[in-house]
Amino acid sequence: MKAVAMPTVSRVAVCGGTHGNELAGVYLVRERLKRRADGTEPVSVVTVMSNPRAVQLCVRYVETDLNRCFTRATLSAPVSETSPYEMIRSQELNALLGPKGSAQAVDLLCDLHNTTANTGLCLITYSDCDWICLHICKHLQARTNTSCAGKAMHKSMEIGPQPHSVVRSVIFSAMQEGVQLMMDWICQFNSGGFSTTNPCRNLFAVCVFMNIDYPRDSETHVITAAVHPNLQDRDFCLLHPGDPMFLSFSGETLRYKGKEALYPFFINEGAYYEKGIALSLARKRRVEIPSVRSETLR
Amino acid sequence: MKAVAMPTVSRVAVCGGTHGNELAGVYLVRERLKRRADGTEPVSVVTVMSNPRAVQLCVRYVETDLNRCFTRATLSAPVSETSPYEMIRSQELNALLGPKGSAQAVDLLCDLHNTTANTGLCLITYSDCDWICLHICKHLQARTNTSCAGKAMHKSMEIGPQPHSVVRSVIFSAMQEGVQLMMDWICQFNSGGFSTTNPCRNLFAVCVFMNIDYPRDSETHVITAAVHPNLQDRDFCLLHPGDPMFLSFSGETLRYKGKEALYPFFINEGAYYEKGIALSLARKRRVEIPSVRSETLR
Repeated sequence: MKAVAMPTVSRVAVCGGTHGNELAGVYLVRERLKRRADGTEPVSVVTVMSNPRAVQLCVRYVETDLNRCFTRATLSAPVSETSPYEMIRSQELNALLGPKGSAQAVDLLCDLHNTTANTGLCLITYSDCDWICLHICKHLQARTNTSCAGKAMHKSMEIGPQPHSVVRSVIFSAMQEGVQLMMDWICQFNSGGFSTTNPCRNLFAVCVFMNIDYPRDSETHVITAAVHPNLQDRDFCLLHPGDPMFLSFSGETLRYKGKEALYPFFINEGAYYEKGIALSLARKRRVEIPSVRSETLR
Repeated sequence: MKAVAMPTVSRVAVCGGTHGNELAGVYLVRERLKRRADGTEPVSVVTVMSNPRAVQLCVRYVETDLNRCFTRATLSAPVSETSPYEMIRSQELNALLGPKGSAQAVDLLCDLHNTTANTGLCLITYSDCDWICLHICKHLQARTNTSCAGKAMHKSMEIGPQPHSVVRSVIFSAMQEGVQLMMDWICQFNSGGFSTTNPCRNLFAVCVFMNIDYPRDSETHVITAAVHPNLQDRDFCLLHPGDPMFLSFSGETLRYKGKEALYPFFINEGAYYEKGIALSLARKRRVEIPSVRSETLR
């Protein structure tokens, strides 16, 4: 199969602090901003602190979740002084890095996140056909213990476990390495270095099938059980029908009642309590990625 | 040595949610409140959600840290509608469980906390001479992996590691077991069951010697290093002069420069970033606890 010709990736955005209390991304962006570009970089990278007010307060968001503001509707809605801060900020970021979907937009945006779940390094992408992102994921998988979850030239890099409002050195370093490996791949791709070493590949990714909420009191909706110790921290390990899923605060084991073995992830993520998600369950799928080459060299 | 006669412990308070995002204590208190007392309990226990507004919002505190409001000055200060919520709440709690230091006060107050540090089960008490608390600590040490840190009939039970705004089942269970073991000791003490089995004992506790802040930028005061991977999660393991302490975000190892080997704890606790504490360093000390017996039986 012939390599598919694709435009070079000439403008990249690295964003951290989209959630202000996910500190590995916050400190990585600060560190990058200290080192001024000297004009010799092979790729133009814009480094952005996405939600500076939330970072300042060390909270996920100030008024509304910035990460849910990048819909076309929100990006084009009229704003006033009374609009939520994150809605205004999403339009600022769209002007800086977009407009989303336009020719002026950056070619690739890497948004840095942390999770309290034991996901390791996990790339989240939103399309089966975004071959650049999928090749980068494959590149990272070969060099680190990276998972890929699929749900555009926009990908999130999630790393855990790390409590929110805390930075752990090993998580910071893993994120730094992930960003560096991504940059390495982009440089090689742009320079044509992959014309032979970048064959058609299979990537195993997981695709969300359903979200599971915590067991709750039917009247008060208060959570009545925690994730079972046998499941806690076992992100991306197959969960079989009948396996323990929750342990209630009164000591009762609640089991997975589905009929299909699935892959759990984002297990016990702190920020998802308010969203009613204890974990996501996913199916594994094989994605075929064609060989790619950069257009400019032919 | 003859056993020291002490009053029975007839009124106990179990408090959770003093910090509203430390969820093991929050759920333990909720679970206890569901089970109504049936009048047959050997000890009168009052169970209290200390900071319900912070619990509702899942934050450490709403306006000011409730755990710093129990000074005599704050408890006796005049309050108005504009006073910080936690200042008003501390006076309500003092009316309910105190007044602090008076004969009407509860005999023992156990305040449930979580930490992102890997402390395991750790009891914090504020006096060398609070023999009831120290005996309870010894009782727990013999049955679980409990540490004791010394700084009146008030003790904090800290358990970690657990991210704030998250409840982990094993941490919840360890806290539940800790409270149960405390109650067991109190019942045995009250019934005179310790007259022979409760000899003079030595307890090893750690006493805070100094707090260490994160390395910071001299101009911006922004943190420039994380706790070193060799030190992270090694609470209560001796730190020697020259041992790695921090790893800067640019990759430089910073070492412990003290001349004395000390015991680190509360390593990388999320809530202490704002207090300028990366870890506490403590000296170990041996505390002699005399045998005690309850007064009413003689």
